[in-house]
Amino acid sequence: MQVYLDHAASSPLRPQARDAWIAAAEVVGNASSIHGGGQQARRVLEEARERLAATLGCDPIEVVFTSGGTEAVNLAVKGLWSARPQGAREIVLPDGEHHATLDSVAALVDREGAVPRPVRLERTGAIPVADFTAALPGAAFATAMVANNELGTISDAAALAEAAASAEVALHLDAVAAFGHIPLSFSAWRADAAGPGGLVAMSVSAHKVGGPVGVGAVVVARGARLHPQIHGGGQQRGLRAGTQDVAGAAAFAVAAEAALADQAAEGVRLGRLRERLAAGILAAVPDAEPLGDPVRRVPGTLHVHFPGARGETLLFLLDQHGVAVSTGSACQAGVPEPSHVVQAIGRDEETARSVLRFSLGRTTTESDVDAALAAIPWAVERARAAGAARSLRS
Amino acid sequence: MQVYLDHAASSPLRPQARDAWIAAAEVVGNASSIHGGGQQARRVLEEARERLAATLGCDPIEVVFTSGGTEAVNLAVKGLWSARPQGAREIVLPDGEHHATLDSVAALVDREGAVPRPVRLERTGAIPVADFTAALPGAAFATAMVANNELGTISDAAALAEAAASAEVALHLDAVAAFGHIPLSFSAWRADAAGPGGLVAMSVSAHKVGGPVGVGAVVVARGARLHPQIHGGGQQRGLRAGTQDVAGAAAFAVAAEAALADQAAEGVRLGRLRERLAAGILAAVPDAEPLGDPVRRVPGTLHVHFPGARGETLLFLLDQHGVAVSTGSACQAGVPEPSHVVQAIGRDEETARSVLRFSLGRTTTESDVDAALAAIPWAVERARAAGAARSLRS
Repeated sequence: MQVYLDHAASSPLRPQARDAWIAAAEVVGNASSIHGGGQQARRVLEEARERLAATLGCDPIEVVFTSGGTEAVNLAVKGLWSARPQGAREIVLPDGEHHATLDSVAALVDREGAVPRPVRLERTGAIPVADFTAALPGAAFATAMVANNELGTISDAAALAEAAASAEVALHLDAVAAFGHIPLSFSAWRADAAGPGGLVAMSVSAHKVGGPVGVGAVVVARGARLHPQIHGGGQQRGLRAGTQDVAGAAAFAVAAEAALADQAAEGVRLGRLRERLAAGILAAVPDAEPLGDPVRRVPGTLHVHFPGARGETLLFLLDQHGVAVSTGSACQAGVPEPSHVVQAIGRDEETARSVLRFSLGRTTTESDVDAALAAIPWAVERARAAGAARSLRS
Repeated sequence: MQVYLDHAASSPLRPQARDAWIAAAEVVGNASSIHGGGQQARRVLEEARERLAATLGCDPIEVVFTSGGTEAVNLAVKGLWSARPQGAREIVLPDGEHHATLDSVAALVDREGAVPRPVRLERTGAIPVADFTAALPGAAFATAMVANNELGTISDAAALAEAAASAEVALHLDAVAAFGHIPLSFSAWRADAAGPGGLVAMSVSAHKVGGPVGVGAVVVARGARLHPQIHGGGQQRGLRAGTQDVAGAAAFAVAAEAALADQAAEGVRLGRLRERLAAGILAAVPDAEPLGDPVRRVPGTLHVHFPGARGETLLFLLDQHGVAVSTGSACQAGVPEPSHVVQAIGRDEETARSVLRFSLGRTTTESDVDAALAAIPWAVERARAAGAARSLRS
């Protein structure tokens, strides 16, 4: 039996989302077709758009479905760049953003002469509102995470949106790691916006809330200046072309609703399980150090620094005991990288290589936590021994 | 009971593809995660990539999964543009390509100074190889449909690929409307390629072959110069970032295999049904005129010009009788546009507004054809009466 403590990477598909997918996939017809079948598909799609909008606090017409969080972030970042005010070239970019944001901005730097304006994070991982505000004037646009995907730290999205509105700079919020865990309200955060400034786009992903992989959305405010990145049939206000994935949208909406219905109760339950896990780790490994903000964080994420133990070694050892966790950093090429987020909060590379992210979620039980706690001391001891041997050899 | 003759817009999900989706969606874990769950997801994904590659005649590593045909075409067209030879600005663009191609090129024209080199179609809808070849020298890249999505006409992809290889110009083939209907072989068509020239990219879509909507792929040759369009975690050789949709990929592979297994037998069966439909239409509406190529075409598509009858009127009337067809043109804003494909084969706007596409597929039966034939004469008579009344009023 796998102990799955990697919900932040992908949360298991909710049964009701799977059922919604199956039901919607039975509808025969392209949602852009005029005939009865097409119109039936369109109705399922638009109902999903309405239901998802309600969970995001936005109007249905503002929901643009995408193939996931990464595409949503790419559309927001590049779409805002393409439609930027004339002459503006700087992008307000806090340290520690997700690779979808960092790499999108890097592409704009390489190809189009964009210039990042970095904002250093607080030691908790939060985006400092004063520094963010100071970076805004004259920027092409700004982007910021609502919750950091590695640390779980929540930034003050309302204050960031207010600052962007005052500065009349367009703001994209990456809410992928926050959605389902804390309340989001696009319209409330946009209330201060004037014209094309303030909050204009917000990205979310389905599989982080128990929907299917391959589905996401970006909320695009009416009146926002944002250019499409995928061109073709003119679907979705011309902002995102392509035959619309009706089944994916329906499953996303159902998963989002279920996540919101559970949010308060799950927050309490997961908070308790996280405390149990943190306390157990500290009892067994006294020099372990939880990182992030102890209070302003998503309930289920526990990010821990284990001095002297490599994250990827810990991960492999825990996996041998059936416990699935993450180092929190991308490892595409098979070469583990130190966490850029941990470095962004002012810690050294050694620390950034010695962290684990435990992310609890809907399916996590007390016995999962206990199984993890049974394996962690052994894994840390082994990882430290491996590290000491590595030091002796080098 | 709906008579669904719009398979070219979207073909119903195959039961075995649905089952593959459900099974793969049960696997818990992000395919980029290192732990056991992630690796299990990765195995399902890579098996899907291998199986799909076999249906496309390419190596598994050349398959880049996307969110559908439109994204695949966008990645190929914009990715080839971004990596074009220095100084080259012209794009070889046959008339009558899909909107995903046309609108991608239009975006490059608007934003980046690209210059289309149009190639006129033959009256059948085929791309003339000599004219295409003449347009190639010095181009940034070329793009071409294997089969036209409206007319069903098949172009000589092998000859186009050979010409591109000789001219050392990179070629993208849009095989969305061809896949599942005629044999495709990326490696055979690429055999003449030298370095970055010749066939380097080929786009396909899952829901055209009975897979789920929201899934597609672009085959990208090793050695091709092509830049990613969605940036982030570095998935899929760095060519397409985003958490990989394992369930979608698995369902696509199963659908593609089933389509290929049935291809020859279905070609014969659908060819006969199409002939029955064409003969019945001509018997009842003697001045109806099938467009496209009578021989070199996908078996299930019948494209007909009904003089004096508006396509959208026919579509609505047939829909009242439960017969789902298409005008073949995009109608996103609710304003029917004349078919750009019909105009591309040298016909006037009036003809381009007076066409219907019947596209038969896996679920189509003889009684579907007979039901359509029972409704068509009435619909044509009514549509012509409406057209005559419109003429009198104006």
